[in-house]
Amino acid sequence: MPVIDLNADLGESFGRWTLGEDAALIEVISSANIACGFHAGDPSTLRRSCELAVGAGVAIGAQVAYRDLAGFGRRFIDASFTELRDDVLYQLGALDGFARIAGSRVSYLKPHGALYHAVVHHQEQAKAVVDAVRTYDPTLAVLGLPGSLLLQEASAVGLRVVNEAFADRQYTADGGLLARSEPGAVLTEPARIAEQVRRLLAGEGVIADDGSVVALNAESICVHGDTPGAVGIARAVRQRISASGGRVQSFTDRPA
Amino acid sequence: MPVIDLNADLGESFGRWTLGEDAALIEVISSANIACGFHAGDPSTLRRSCELAVGAGVAIGAQVAYRDLAGFGRRFIDASFTELRDDVLYQLGALDGFARIAGSRVSYLKPHGALYHAVVHHQEQAKAVVDAVRTYDPTLAVLGLPGSLLLQEASAVGLRVVNEAFADRQYTADGGLLARSEPGAVLTEPARIAEQVRRLLAGEGVIADDGSVVALNAESICVHGDTPGAVGIARAVRQRISASGGRVQSFTDRPA
Amino acid sequence: MPVIDLNADLGESFGRWTLGEDAALIEVISSANIACGFHAGDPSTLRRSCELAVGAGVAIGAQVAYRDLAGFGRRFIDASFTELRDDVLYQLGALDGFARIAGSRVSYLKPHGALYHAVVHHQEQAKAVVDAVRTYDPTLAVLGLPGSLLLQEASAVGLRVVNEAFADRQYTADGGLLARSEPGAVLTEPARIAEQVRRLLAGEGVIADDGSVVALNAESICVHGDTPGAVGIARAVRQRISASGGRVQSFTDRPA
Amino acid sequence: MPVIDLNADLGESFGRWTLGEDAALIEVISSANIACGFHAGDPSTLRRSCELAVGAGVAIGAQVAYRDLAGFGRRFIDASFTELRDDVLYQLGALDGFARIAGSRVSYLKPHGALYHAVVHHQEQAKAVVDAVRTYDPTLAVLGLPGSLLLQEASAVGLRVVNEAFADRQYTADGGLLARSEPGAVLTEPARIAEQVRRLLAGEGVIADDGSVVALNAESICVHGDTPGAVGIARAVRQRISASGGRVQSFTDRPA
Repeated sequence: MPVIDLNADLGESFGRWTLGEDAALIEVISSANIACGFHAGDPSTLRRSCELAVGAGVAIGAQVAYRDLAGFGRRFIDASFTELRDDVLYQLGALDGFARIAGSRVSYLKPHGALYHAVVHHQEQAKAVVDAVRTYDPTLAVLGLPGSLLLQEASAVGLRVVNEAFADRQYTADGGLLARSEPGAVLTEPARIAEQVRRLLAGEGVIADDGSVVALNAESICVHGDTPGAVGIARAVRQRISASGGRVQSFTDRPA
Repeated sequence: MPVIDLNADLGESFGRWTLGEDAALIEVISSANIACGFHAGDPSTLRRSCELAVGAGVAIGAQVAYRDLAGFGRRFIDASFTELRDDVLYQLGALDGFARIAGSRVSYLKPHGALYHAVVHHQEQAKAVVDAVRTYDPTLAVLGLPGSLLLQEASAVGLRVVNEAFADRQYTADGGLLARSEPGAVLTEPARIAEQVRRLLAGEGVIADDGSVVALNAESICVHGDTPGAVGIARAVRQRISASGGRVQSFTDRPA
Repeated sequence: MPVIDLNADLGESFGRWTLGEDAALIEVISSANIACGFHAGDPSTLRRSCELAVGAGVAIGAQVAYRDLAGFGRRFIDASFTELRDDVLYQLGALDGFARIAGSRVSYLKPHGALYHAVVHHQEQAKAVVDAVRTYDPTLAVLGLPGSLLLQEASAVGLRVVNEAFADRQYTADGGLLARSEPGAVLTEPARIAEQVRRLLAGEGVIADDGSVVALNAESICVHGDTPGAVGIARAVRQRISASGGRVQSFTDRPA
Repeated sequence: MPVIDLNADLGESFGRWTLGEDAALIEVISSANIACGFHAGDPSTLRRSCELAVGAGVAIGAQVAYRDLAGFGRRFIDASFTELRDDVLYQLGALDGFARIAGSRVSYLKPHGALYHAVVHHQEQAKAVVDAVRTYDPTLAVLGLPGSLLLQEASAVGLRVVNEAFADRQYTADGGLLARSEPGAVLTEPARIAEQVRRLLAGEGVIADDGSVVALNAESICVHGDTPGAVGIARAVRQRISASGGRVQSFTDRPA
């Protein structure tokens, strides 16, 4: 029986402002990437998100980001190795405190927004994130883009790495994602999404925009909950996995 | 041989701005109240402060504060129980992460600035701080003003409480501190400070501004390092303790 | 023909987070209290809000607040006279810049949230807000609660003051608002709201919770757009004014 | 009689943290680049800095920056055109408010830190800064690096541009500055600095690190006040100008 993880961002509200349908999404996923306060997430939201995850039996991941509330962490910041490593450590510690009092632990890290994209190719920043994880707790896994420098650096120091794939994004022939500015970058047709999920689960890779097959050995599929209809798509992904005879389970519940 | 703790605020720089003579002060004290990022303390400063404390064999305390960089935590904020408890938890977790990677742990909490003064009499906020400590780790001590609601509430839930006294502040007959706006509120004459330290160490209490003796059973004396000459006073306090046959030692190294 | 102003909060989004139905609300009101960045409102939101107001022929007011994004300005902060005056000046200048490039000017100030409530009775803070307005531009009006220290202090230095009333809040016999924690504090029955608006427009005052009539000489009625159904209520208030033979017009278009 | 402007950064304190010797520096310079709150400068510091400048007869410039207190504006942030333009407008308006109540106006803009360096070559960000200035007040001058895209874009839309040179930095043959990481990047020998100032004043250009002469038509020389000895160097620069028969005067007092 094929097993796969479903991960999604959680806890991206801040103070008076709410974002995302966390209560609905938590029923669908097996791993919650919880915002740690630097791009989103006030302390009470961190606490509630951890309680929500623990209540649903969902693994807690630290969704670390640049310090940029105004930009929601979506803008590259040229932070130095030391600044970024320490910013990540601060976020890890803060979230882990809430995870522990909720009866769990942070079990993995996934970078958010511009940091996610930067550490695909920016070696100093990739090393900074990895160094933070290794220093904080070398049993934490790192979730990211297959082939990214982040996962390479994490592997190199002995951290568990977890490849993620996207159910609703169009891939290019080199395994990258078609830029959001391009037509067709985000899949919206349910049948297309379902087929991509089926292929990922079966280990058949994905069909790139030029028709070629891209090998993708993903242990986790990323779904979203912050746009209208997103939870519906997430639910459809989960149903497709069941329909294919698969099971949704956090990678943290399985041997590395 | 009388034993007493010396505590001081540490790590109150932020980014480009430096404050305090941490490197000199760490040689004098036995407990470091490290700022946690809400009133001061960027992540790299937290890390370095924890390393400094561990290197000097000094206990690490969480100097928690209102979220107020612009006001340096010196302005009362009417935060709710939930907001304040979660803000304190966030700060505790973040600092504890750095303490642990430095090879230690946060072993106590001391509120900073306006929060320190608020929890003397503000029951909801006192309870919020105490609830955070109890939830996070009930083995942490709480350092504060003798007789404050903070220490009363902490005692009531079984937390260890530690009374602190001030070497260089004039007390009033009711055990309070003479307001800084009053003349003579801050002692500057070395002989006066030395005598107050001697009395505290001998368990003789302090002399109030009306000449009466105030009983003060203090386990820790607070010294400062953020004003010109402050480290000199701190050194003098430590020398006076040695000269009186006493020893400076963190309260965390002694049974409660 | 009776004339009255309708004011509402606008521009309370921040970065990724949106709040309020500004595009719908702007069609209903004659004065927009635009957030200035301290409790809400990133710079692009300030710019767009000013453009929206100018496009709709609506007066621009500075909705100044404590510096508290995490608390949305809803928590009292014990800022000093100098801190608060300068915080208000900063916000006034920033918003006025956007108002001017949109072809208008800030024409009044209304405090937000906890500051609104504080300056009803906190003299130092009321004086600080008034001093900022007087210093910045003494032709600006100050919009607030009738009888508040804010309006008294503003009057005392020669500023124009504008009393506001609430269409959907239950008043007490002394002219105050029934606390939100009390049942019936917020009126939801359309007929009750309509009757309160009709009375305000006719200069008949409002009916307090003990049945007595409270004289209220309001030049502006406050409506809301940040809760479900709020815009519907605002529209109903406007229709009631028309149905009563009245006209909605900004107080800034009329002699003081 | 040759005339030149001396500019320096001012108002870079924040809340409890002080930076720079503003009171000494203001006696030396003719143009003050005042921080606007995004990388440094709380509102009270803005107010006091404007008062200081007006009192000394010094022109006020907006030292605009990325929104990055923790990084002191020294880290490139990949802000979009719209975000950056509106961030600059916000800062311009806020500072201009304080300038006006001090009896002056913002008369020019100079980008700070990483933004200063980005707009040398980053066209979108250069255009964003220029668009903010043009929109806010097209009579404002733009102060920056000769040859930078910022000055090119500013010229292209009809803004006055002002070239600045550095008294204490080593130039390279292409007119750039030798990177701070290189030995000899910052001149410290008084005679070298004096000679560079003399050349700048005489319109003889500067001597590059390869010995060649770089033509530099600078209307302003940048001095510093935030490092030990910096004010001494600034004073020496001013004395050298007098000794060379020159006069220090703001470019804003002269026709463009």
